[in-house]
Amino acid sequence: MSAEPHAGTYAHEAVLPHPHPVPEAAPPAARELVAKHREALDEALAAVTSRGYLSRYPESPSPRVYGEGAAEAGEQAFEGHLTRDFAELDDQPATDGRVGDEVSPYGPTLRITYPHQDVEGLMAAAQHAIPAWRDAGAEVRAAVCVDAVDRIHARSFEMAHAVMHTSGQPFVMSFQAAGPHAQDRALEAIAYALFEQRRVPSSVVWEKPAKGEPVRMTKDYRVVPRGVALVIGCNTFPTWNSYPGLFASLATGNAVVVKPHPRAVLPLAISVAAIREALRAAGFDPDLVTLAPEADGEGLAKTLALHPAVKVIDYTGGPTFGNWLEREAGAAGKAVYTEKAGVNTVVIDSIPDLRGALGNLAFSFTLYSGQMCTTPQNVYVPRAGVDTDEGHVSFDELGEKLAAAIGRLTGDDAKAVELLGATVNDGVRERAAGLAALASSAGGRVVVDSRQVAHPRYPDAVVRTPGLVALDVTAESTYSQECFGPVAFLVATDSTEQSLATFRDTVREHGAMTAAVYSTSEQVLDDARDAAADAGVALSENLNGQVFVNQTAAFSDFHGTGANPAANAAYTDGAFVASRFRVVTSRRHT
Amino acid sequence: MSAEPHAGTYAHEAVLPHPHPVPEAAPPAARELVAKHREALDEALAAVTSRGYLSRYPESPSPRVYGEGAAEAGEQAFEGHLTRDFAELDDQPATDGRVGDEVSPYGPTLRITYPHQDVEGLMAAAQHAIPAWRDAGAEVRAAVCVDAVDRIHARSFEMAHAVMHTSGQPFVMSFQAAGPHAQDRALEAIAYALFEQRRVPSSVVWEKPAKGEPVRMTKDYRVVPRGVALVIGCNTFPTWNSYPGLFASLATGNAVVVKPHPRAVLPLAISVAAIREALRAAGFDPDLVTLAPEADGEGLAKTLALHPAVKVIDYTGGPTFGNWLEREAGAAGKAVYTEKAGVNTVVIDSIPDLRGALGNLAFSFTLYSGQMCTTPQNVYVPRAGVDTDEGHVSFDELGEKLAAAIGRLTGDDAKAVELLGATVNDGVRERAAGLAALASSAGGRVVVDSRQVAHPRYPDAVVRTPGLVALDVTAESTYSQECFGPVAFLVATDSTEQSLATFRDTVREHGAMTAAVYSTSEQVLDDARDAAADAGVALSENLNGQVFVNQTAAFSDFHGTGANPAANAAYTDGAFVASRFRVVTSRRHT
Repeated sequence: MSAEPHAGTYAHEAVLPHPHPVPEAAPPAARELVAKHREALDEALAAVTSRGYLSRYPESPSPRVYGEGAAEAGEQAFEGHLTRDFAELDDQPATDGRVGDEVSPYGPTLRITYPHQDVEGLMAAAQHAIPAWRDAGAEVRAAVCVDAVDRIHARSFEMAHAVMHTSGQPFVMSFQAAGPHAQDRALEAIAYALFEQRRVPSSVVWEKPAKGEPVRMTKDYRVVPRGVALVIGCNTFPTWNSYPGLFASLATGNAVVVKPHPRAVLPLAISVAAIREALRAAGFDPDLVTLAPEADGEGLAKTLALHPAVKVIDYTGGPTFGNWLEREAGAAGKAVYTEKAGVNTVVIDSIPDLRGALGNLAFSFTLYSGQMCTTPQNVYVPRAGVDTDEGHVSFDELGEKLAAAIGRLTGDDAKAVELLGATVNDGVRERAAGLAALASSAGGRVVVDSRQVAHPRYPDAVVRTPGLVALDVTAESTYSQECFGPVAFLVATDSTEQSLATFRDTVREHGAMTAAVYSTSEQVLDDARDAAADAGVALSENLNGQVFVNQTAAFSDFHGTGANPAANAAYTDGAFVASRFRVVTSRRHT
Repeated sequence: MSAEPHAGTYAHEAVLPHPHPVPEAAPPAARELVAKHREALDEALAAVTSRGYLSRYPESPSPRVYGEGAAEAGEQAFEGHLTRDFAELDDQPATDGRVGDEVSPYGPTLRITYPHQDVEGLMAAAQHAIPAWRDAGAEVRAAVCVDAVDRIHARSFEMAHAVMHTSGQPFVMSFQAAGPHAQDRALEAIAYALFEQRRVPSSVVWEKPAKGEPVRMTKDYRVVPRGVALVIGCNTFPTWNSYPGLFASLATGNAVVVKPHPRAVLPLAISVAAIREALRAAGFDPDLVTLAPEADGEGLAKTLALHPAVKVIDYTGGPTFGNWLEREAGAAGKAVYTEKAGVNTVVIDSIPDLRGALGNLAFSFTLYSGQMCTTPQNVYVPRAGVDTDEGHVSFDELGEKLAAAIGRLTGDDAKAVELLGATVNDGVRERAAGLAALASSAGGRVVVDSRQVAHPRYPDAVVRTPGLVALDVTAESTYSQECFGPVAFLVATDSTEQSLATFRDTVREHGAMTAAVYSTSEQVLDDARDAAADAGVALSENLNGQVFVNQTAAFSDFHGTGANPAANAAYTDGAFVASRFRVVTSRRHT
């Protein structure tokens, strides 16, 4: 199932810390998993060190890969959830009622209920489960986590429908992003966590030279978790954005409480059910991972975040609550990892491959109607226009060409919906419908308006093509805020120099998850790299093919940097895992 | 100068990430340092991975090691500072006055002044210095940092006197702890920082299989610092507790502002001067590291901590300000590493070597009059007494024997002062003088009082032997607070089981830097390890020789764990360095 890792320019063979011994007390089923998943983990450890290519979970939903009937079985499994109580979590430890009122962005009401949990009972059960998990050691935990991801993987088609009908993603994207890509990100986090724990040997004999006999001590190093970890899911990427924190915390010995977004519960319910099944099968207490869905208006995320048992928090969502979490939970000494919002930026100086660049950018704007935290928003272009391989293109011409490229992708409603998906909430819909007013108030003009697309299967879905608004660089109050959804700004600047300075300054202040640059000049590309380093955002250069600025590859591309206000962490680096556990030494003379 | 690293049970040869290429733009002098210090860094990297024995800087102040005349020259260098302006920092960037009113705990007034800094000017200079340091890369930074520590090392005797006359440490301890041991901790932090940065390759070619040609991208990964780092020094261990954070931040590309304790400025002034000299010699802006001494009552630490340019803070000191920092600076998204206070604990169940244990414990109580954050405070002993290799010993007899062991170490004033040093402040002196009242108020009794020792050379020094107070386990309100200084509590418990439970609960709630256990029972030792894991504190077992619970060895023993309220970080683990920098990617098709 897994591909060969690629070393790139880095000789990764030599850089892996040694495995820890597996404790004899570990459950037999768990010990078997260590052997079973050793190769997968070795590959993943190599990949996170080389940051070369690796994918364990194939992204193509083809029957040649997943088998005949897999797609149909997955769809049936999804449909089997509708209008029912989600029974797989009936064994959760502190059920005190049922909640759930998800409505698909495509129209249908899901009518699924989930077991609501009493907070104190949930925390007690989570804490009770920790010691055996802690004492099983890093190798066992990593193997059980891989087994859990494999069980999630087996439900990829079911998950694709679950995410499609909670986030509004188009089906193929939902399959890939919520399935294999999210699973690869999970494996990446597991590998990082294992590497970090392996860096501390389980035992050493320390020998200090002395007059006469050396002083000899045996020192045992024990990994201990922080406690209960909380994962707060988001509406648009319920699995992709939850798995890294979830598996990083679990693999380092913590218990995990998953608080899903109230409009995207099902994907995390399926995930938690699969993880609990894996824990149980391996001989551990399934209450190590629980789902805590909330009742309407309950404000459960705050309650959980401030609970003294919770020591680690992962959050994806809006900046208001994200900033509250960083402030309040940070002040309480909890480790808080957030991904919020920013103003993703493209700087166009000149274009070596106009046709390729237009198609690439148009796809990035179009995919999921721009409802990705990584979709570009601000495109800085010199008002004098840009040189391209097809000659000089004026600012206005570039806007028209971009609009045309979007039109080619979205002109046919039936095909368009397979890229656009459905709008996820009223905020997105209002922004998409209000471009003329927005342009007018900012002294700009609509280059191409967001068009409402009729969905052939789901008449209630609100589907929107991306709109483009041209603004002057002086309209900073408009383009320096996130305008989430199918809206991008073409910003006319005095020069590329000003574009880069504006890019650096707005990202430093307002954050960004992604950035891109187009230029034929090595000097400009180098200046863009410096601006990106100063701004603390990853840079894609001259993309013109099948790699998009809004997509990152697990094991190789970091998602976020932690170096600007859009996110205080990255998927996945050492900082993302290192503070999720501590090391306790015991030492004695040998 | 350096010793051979010892691999212990861990094959460290295979676990080192590869060096990054040294940028061509790095200054020639810096490039030479990379070659010069490669072996030292390789040894240090091996040691932090094996956590076996390593010491680069010899701890013996013998002329055979340091050369004839080194001690005298160091003492003269120290005396040369007295009654003068500290001129080596005259080139600091934002001097707006002079401050300094240190008084030696041994009596003399130092009468040294230091250049006070304008905060905005200081921050601007620090920020200005960062880009060239950032772009020099991890290998250059590590080598320059080693060079800086070597320059500090060359001033070890001068430093010994400087620390002795600011902290009150006895001379030999001051030489070792403030000199070579602190320098080894600095090298450990540099090695951890280098390892962490090397984990991300500087570049990779990523190759994704596709129909036809694979997709190939070149991805460059650039380490970027967080910004300006602040180190807040303490009175008792101005160098040992400052170097790990200082060098971890500097080695990861940050600029560092060092705010010394107003009563212990000189040791950090010497350190900063040596580091600035190293930076300048290597071709970098010395304002990467500056000293910010404060005027009387200025509250400079708060001002600096809340300055928006400051992104990383290291602090050692009292819990009140430490908790404020964690709360306020944590809420502002800064990385905060604190070491505060706790109730260090010894659990005595039974003693395999009574004579050795008594001598070992007495030394731990006596050294520096118990003014170490690692000195044991609470000794839990079953009220029925304990079995030993010399037969059963009652609770009262154990107290008498401990008192006698302390008496053997401290009975001769001239010898005693070489272990005890001088008390550092009035709080310590008042606690030491008030044992009878303390015992009475807690329903206990004084086993042996703290005795004032006359210092033969320094009549104004207040030197105190450790006192022991016997308490019942019910007097929790007394022994569950830190009682900093020459005071230990012998706490009578119902059983070892109660001792371990009390140990676990008090440390969980109030924190501890160290713990020890004495037992002949493997089961009790195992239970103690579990209690220590639950409490999140390192455990020393049956110490009876020349290793003491209040001392940790660089490269092998973690100092603190971050897993209990005494400290939120450890010297040194991955978590201590990983959040001090971020990684910014730039990617393009190959």
